[in-house]
Amino acid sequence: MPKFIKKTSGRVGLPPGYLMHVGDRKMETSRIRVFDYDEQQIQEKEVKSIRECVPFRDTATTTWINIDGIHDMELMAEVGTLFNVHPLALEDIVDSGHPPKFEEYDDFILIMMKMLNYDEANDEIMAEQFSMVVGSNFIITFQERVGDVFEPVRGRLRAGRQRIRSSGTDYLAYALIDVVVDRYFVILEHLGDQIEALEEELEKEASVETLNKIRRLKRELIFLRKSVWPLREVVGGLEKSESKLMKKTTARFLRDVYEHTIQVIDTIESFRDMLSGLLDIYLSTVSNRMNEVMKVLTIIATIFIPLTFIAGIYGMNFQFMPELAWRWSYPIVWGVMLAVVVFMVVYFRRKKWL
Amino acid sequence: MPKFIKKTSGRVGLPPGYLMHVGDRKMETSRIRVFDYDEQQIQEKEVKSIRECVPFRDTATTTWINIDGIHDMELMAEVGTLFNVHPLALEDIVDSGHPPKFEEYDDFILIMMKMLNYDEANDEIMAEQFSMVVGSNFIITFQERVGDVFEPVRGRLRAGRQRIRSSGTDYLAYALIDVVVDRYFVILEHLGDQIEALEEELEKEASVETLNKIRRLKRELIFLRKSVWPLREVVGGLEKSESKLMKKTTARFLRDVYEHTIQVIDTIESFRDMLSGLLDIYLSTVSNRMNEVMKVLTIIATIFIPLTFIAGIYGMNFQFMPELAWRWSYPIVWGVMLAVVVFMVVYFRRKKWL
Amino acid sequence: MPKFIKKTSGRVGLPPGYLMHVGDRKMETSRIRVFDYDEQQIQEKEVKSIRECVPFRDTATTTWINIDGIHDMELMAEVGTLFNVHPLALEDIVDSGHPPKFEEYDDFILIMMKMLNYDEANDEIMAEQFSMVVGSNFIITFQERVGDVFEPVRGRLRAGRQRIRSSGTDYLAYALIDVVVDRYFVILEHLGDQIEALEEELEKEASVETLNKIRRLKRELIFLRKSVWPLREVVGGLEKSESKLMKKTTARFLRDVYEHTIQVIDTIESFRDMLSGLLDIYLSTVSNRMNEVMKVLTIIATIFIPLTFIAGIYGMNFQFMPELAWRWSYPIVWGVMLAVVVFMVVYFRRKKWL
Amino acid sequence: MPKFIKKTSGRVGLPPGYLMHVGDRKMETSRIRVFDYDEQQIQEKEVKSIRECVPFRDTATTTWINIDGIHDMELMAEVGTLFNVHPLALEDIVDSGHPPKFEEYDDFILIMMKMLNYDEANDEIMAEQFSMVVGSNFIITFQERVGDVFEPVRGRLRAGRQRIRSSGTDYLAYALIDVVVDRYFVILEHLGDQIEALEEELEKEASVETLNKIRRLKRELIFLRKSVWPLREVVGGLEKSESKLMKKTTARFLRDVYEHTIQVIDTIESFRDMLSGLLDIYLSTVSNRMNEVMKVLTIIATIFIPLTFIAGIYGMNFQFMPELAWRWSYPIVWGVMLAVVVFMVVYFRRKKWL
Amino acid sequence: MPKFIKKTSGRVGLPPGYLMHVGDRKMETSRIRVFDYDEQQIQEKEVKSIRECVPFRDTATTTWINIDGIHDMELMAEVGTLFNVHPLALEDIVDSGHPPKFEEYDDFILIMMKMLNYDEANDEIMAEQFSMVVGSNFIITFQERVGDVFEPVRGRLRAGRQRIRSSGTDYLAYALIDVVVDRYFVILEHLGDQIEALEEELEKEASVETLNKIRRLKRELIFLRKSVWPLREVVGGLEKSESKLMKKTTARFLRDVYEHTIQVIDTIESFRDMLSGLLDIYLSTVSNRMNEVMKVLTIIATIFIPLTFIAGIYGMNFQFMPELAWRWSYPIVWGVMLAVVVFMVVYFRRKKWL
Repeated sequence: MPKFIKKTSGRVGLPPGYLMHVGDRKMETSRIRVFDYDEQQIQEKEVKSIRECVPFRDTATTTWINIDGIHDMELMAEVGTLFNVHPLALEDIVDSGHPPKFEEYDDFILIMMKMLNYDEANDEIMAEQFSMVVGSNFIITFQERVGDVFEPVRGRLRAGRQRIRSSGTDYLAYALIDVVVDRYFVILEHLGDQIEALEEELEKEASVETLNKIRRLKRELIFLRKSVWPLREVVGGLEKSESKLMKKTTARFLRDVYEHTIQVIDTIESFRDMLSGLLDIYLSTVSNRMNEVMKVLTIIATIFIPLTFIAGIYGMNFQFMPELAWRWSYPIVWGVMLAVVVFMVVYFRRKKWL
Repeated sequence: MPKFIKKTSGRVGLPPGYLMHVGDRKMETSRIRVFDYDEQQIQEKEVKSIRECVPFRDTATTTWINIDGIHDMELMAEVGTLFNVHPLALEDIVDSGHPPKFEEYDDFILIMMKMLNYDEANDEIMAEQFSMVVGSNFIITFQERVGDVFEPVRGRLRAGRQRIRSSGTDYLAYALIDVVVDRYFVILEHLGDQIEALEEELEKEASVETLNKIRRLKRELIFLRKSVWPLREVVGGLEKSESKLMKKTTARFLRDVYEHTIQVIDTIESFRDMLSGLLDIYLSTVSNRMNEVMKVLTIIATIFIPLTFIAGIYGMNFQFMPELAWRWSYPIVWGVMLAVVVFMVVYFRRKKWL
Repeated sequence: MPKFIKKTSGRVGLPPGYLMHVGDRKMETSRIRVFDYDEQQIQEKEVKSIRECVPFRDTATTTWINIDGIHDMELMAEVGTLFNVHPLALEDIVDSGHPPKFEEYDDFILIMMKMLNYDEANDEIMAEQFSMVVGSNFIITFQERVGDVFEPVRGRLRAGRQRIRSSGTDYLAYALIDVVVDRYFVILEHLGDQIEALEEELEKEASVETLNKIRRLKRELIFLRKSVWPLREVVGGLEKSESKLMKKTTARFLRDVYEHTIQVIDTIESFRDMLSGLLDIYLSTVSNRMNEVMKVLTIIATIFIPLTFIAGIYGMNFQFMPELAWRWSYPIVWGVMLAVVVFMVVYFRRKKWL
Repeated sequence: MPKFIKKTSGRVGLPPGYLMHVGDRKMETSRIRVFDYDEQQIQEKEVKSIRECVPFRDTATTTWINIDGIHDMELMAEVGTLFNVHPLALEDIVDSGHPPKFEEYDDFILIMMKMLNYDEANDEIMAEQFSMVVGSNFIITFQERVGDVFEPVRGRLRAGRQRIRSSGTDYLAYALIDVVVDRYFVILEHLGDQIEALEEELEKEASVETLNKIRRLKRELIFLRKSVWPLREVVGGLEKSESKLMKKTTARFLRDVYEHTIQVIDTIESFRDMLSGLLDIYLSTVSNRMNEVMKVLTIIATIFIPLTFIAGIYGMNFQFMPELAWRWSYPIVWGVMLAVVVFMVVYFRRKKWL
Repeated sequence: MPKFIKKTSGRVGLPPGYLMHVGDRKMETSRIRVFDYDEQQIQEKEVKSIRECVPFRDTATTTWINIDGIHDMELMAEVGTLFNVHPLALEDIVDSGHPPKFEEYDDFILIMMKMLNYDEANDEIMAEQFSMVVGSNFIITFQERVGDVFEPVRGRLRAGRQRIRSSGTDYLAYALIDVVVDRYFVILEHLGDQIEALEEELEKEASVETLNKIRRLKRELIFLRKSVWPLREVVGGLEKSESKLMKKTTARFLRDVYEHTIQVIDTIESFRDMLSGLLDIYLSTVSNRMNEVMKVLTIIATIFIPLTFIAGIYGMNFQFMPELAWRWSYPIVWGVMLAVVVFMVVYFRRKKWL
């Protein structure tokens, strides 16, 4: 449930732009890493304080400042002051429950999205808030914890000669978004495998465990949908943005990401369809199996009930029961019983109940 | 049910603008509090009659008149006359069942929304009508009863040096709306906790009580949805309003509230999804458990039925039953019975019914 | 069913504008009442023939002609000729199954809506076609039977000094629409009460009768929805109409009615949600109760089956059954039986089946 | 099933405009009838070959050529050549599975719709493709078989003095569409009657037959919906068409047909709602009845099981059973049994199971 | 499941335009076939390397290069270089899981769609990616494996004198799309036949096998829908394209394909409706049958239980049971038993349980 709503009771009545971290604190101290590059050279270092990044702010080179940890309000306030980030934007960034959004400010663009990971241990999708402030010559990215999926982008940056080195902040922003969206496919693959496994399991056996798995997957899909759905508008808005920060050449790349987002959303919808189909199958399998059990058992009971009745008749102690004294009564009773059984079996067969 | 529709039968055929209080009267006498402030000074007092507020009407300072209680039609009529509020607006304000709305009049803007509270005693969401008449230099707010969530806003007003003191009525209106919307998150948290608790309860035990809880939560969500859904258009309309009463600088803040509203609505939808998932789980859990009970019991019965039949056979009183006289009949019968039991258990096992 | 579709087979192939009454004839002879008024004076009379109304047609005063009964095709044709009403408009007016509509003609506006009443006797919503032809200085209203909800409007007309007397036909049209829409709230109240009663009934007892009530309410809601839904466009279209017959000052009042219509539609949707929730509750309550019955009964049966088997064993008549001759056999058997019962009860308890 | 998809496998890869009849051949040879008229005179004849119609093509009079049978590809090709009908239009016309459509070509308008009939024998809705090519002074209509619903239109044509004689091809097209749409109401009436009958049947008895009827009706509605739904756009497009072939005066009449189409679609939706409601009712009625049966039967069984056990006890043959020798044992056992019965009945009564 | 999501984990973080084949490799080596034609002449050959096609690139004749196999990244890169295809377009083409799309580039149009085939062996729909790069005087088509449905188009090309020879690349593109869409109808026919067969099967017998078939068909429909749905926008976009590559004369033909696409989508929706109807029928048939079995069996049991009780009574060994010694006890007991049976049967009959 914490995945669906963050505790925000404390926020009621605070003035706008008041910075308050919403969500769990996921690491001790924040970590700041800087990439500063242009076509010719690249510089990469880890800094202790955001103040050390100020020199890069006004140079012509592209600067990528990555901040791991959004719980340090002082640091955030400093970022706001030094890089002129609007307080409302900062307020959103430090709210780890904020849905994906895209907003154009005067000097920068704010992009927020969810970075998803599959936590194998708990068999659960983990979401991390990922925010980007895209300025004309700098990008500041915010993550909730150390460790991310951007290593390939860093590799391309270091490699040089790549388009990424010669293009500006908008292309870097695209590259980062692209990686995050590509990660979603990994999650989808994981879920797809689970659905497939469930389907095979269902063909063999439908236990309460299966039901729990269906329920868990359903919940994961609701969560996934909630995390990804708004991205459609985010990337779409970015592609169509008329901000001077977004260059026309980047638009085609964003269109590519947009298509991937649509594909993710469509696959989620297909999965939902399939999952609700699985639930239907589960329910009818269970009830089918139950019915079969009940039927056979009831039939056994039904066959023996008349027989027991007949035996009961001749167990009565009346003094005047002529049959009791007859010579062939006992075998005749056996014969009658056999006849009853045969009749009932034939009858049930004909009615297709057996 | 009173939550869903107010008694309005008495209204049919009344001329438009005829003031008639719709809803329960929630307090004895109305209470009027006034805040009058600009950047330099602030004045706060409680007045007996709305006439005492007239002097503030025409000054340059911002005036916030808060009226608790909307059942006093004379007072309402006076407000209309003194502050030039359109009769149709007043008619809406005194209708406690009116859905959220936003309407621009010539001299003022009417904003109506629901203030929600969680009534712990009855485990129910309580809604109170909250209306605002936003003029160029005054705001009149209407609540149904004393006690509200605006204390933090008053604090910020009293504190001075805050943006709220230097901005006009539109910013004050934003601040009030923001608080009301933030309160919704508290309600959502509450509901989220309940859904989570229900989920855990379901894993352990599914009783009729659980079903009632699901039902009650479902109803709360229908009600919440009805109260919040129109707010989307209200805040959206306000943000995009071209009225001279709304300043451009306030629009960004309203956009922030708008996003929160969307977030509330999305969370409600997710909750609905999860709740209907819970209902499915409940139903299949109940039927699963029932099936298991029935199965084991029926199996016991089925095993004993043939045995009882055998016992019945040798309880018959025929004179000519050779087995009765045999030396080893009794132990043989026991053996046969044991064989039947073993056979049936093995059979059931193989069929996976046991 | 007659509520959902009127018999119209006879109409196939008729030329457009051919007048044919569709629906049940609800009264003997049509009745015509006329109100003619301006700010200074008012005149009210019942006339025998529509020809008597012609003099009012061309005066500057506002004239309201109300016709009860739409089955007299000659009268209708006369209305068409004398007041220049387009044949297609007349064809719609006499079709009592026509859905609500709004259409602008050159000289007049046609407004059609459903007037709803709750028939207490049959516990059913009754719909009556109500049509209005709004000209520049006259309104002709058509109802299916005598007796309507417009008495308050007539009262306001007679009272004088009201806005209604000084405003023209568009305001009168608004006033009439307003009354009809206000009546819908009365119907909704009625339905709301019934749903509430059903809910309480369900908590106590779920009988087949409850199911029938749910079904009937559901049908009423489908019908209500069909009657009210198109009204949204009718009133919305009227509000935004650019016809010279609709004055700007009336638009705000129409906006008020529009909001009421939306409120009615939203409430219907909420009711539908609640009703389908009730059906779910009903079904699970019934199955829950059934399950409980079955469980307890089966448990009783299961406990006695092994006991009966034991008794059967010692009812066998074998000559060599050593236990039969033992001194303490009988009490021991009782002991064994008691042990079986205790074991089973404990087992069922532990499995939470009891 | 043939109603839902026509066999079209043979068409893959054919060039556009290649004429190939799709659907069943419903008559032997095609029949051609011609009406040629203006305000003064009218001429009506049946011709052997389409060539005989060429003279009418270029006169000022309006010509209506009706062709029964669309399976004769030579005839169709001739129509194309002589009247300059685009090959793609002809390809659509001869495809009896083509959904309703409206398309403007340079010289003519193509209108396609379904003519529906209720086949009483098979209790099934039969659809026939009806296409119209509307030129400036001629209309060619195509039907799949002889026998149609246009007799009233022909009557109005022959009668003279009607608007139909003085208006051009667009009005004739309207008149034909109007008749086809009016026919839909007859189908709806038929379905409405069946739903009503089903509802009454359900109140009395719910058999498997009822389920089959619901299923059949549901399928009819899916089919009806598929046939009528696209008509909305067809008639709407026609009404708003800016083609010089459609006169402004005809637009109002088309608006009338448009409203009827909407009414048909809405009624279909209501029927679907009601039918799915009926299915719910059916299922709960069946399960209710079953539950009642099971309950009473199980209760009977449960009451007798303890009694049989008691009888079993005293059927045991132990030598030392003191009760067997007591004087009043037998009546006492009867008393005990009675007490058990009374206790159980009271218990069941109190639990409301009886 | 592989049908729903391709393995793409390896792609995360790759630069845009990096060519990586996604999907199964369906053939050994790629095959390239070239058609080069204008109105006068046509040339057809199979080439070893794409370089051999370069001469055709700049001639005025229309060239159709068909490449079977999209797994050879070197070949793809060469195509990109020689024919100036944008890397992002190539990236999409080699992704066999990419949904249908339409995108205009500066020099060419990219069209992607699914080519569907029914795999009779596995009773499954097989999808193959089909992409087209439409330039001003060349079309390059990409398929995943040898063997396609375009033979009729090739036939029309070879035949000469057809419109296809005199029209340019846009018409050829239309012809290819047309064939692919026509193939969908064949798939639909296949599915329609299966649904029909299922329906008949259901009327006779509802086994678990039926359920599996319904489930499989449902999955096929989800897949089909996912493959075809985006095509609506693809063809619609193509029809409305303002690219200089698409001639106005081709638009009408594309409109025809568009209508077919809509028809395919509508039929899929109808099939979904029918299939979910079938599931409902299946479930109620199964439960109906089960109920019937249970009912009859329970009735048999219930009738014999009281009889067995009576027999049990007179099997008791009390010394003082006067009835035991009576002369007519035995026949009387038989009489009583018969009376009980008759009473119960009559009772059940009257209650309609039998």
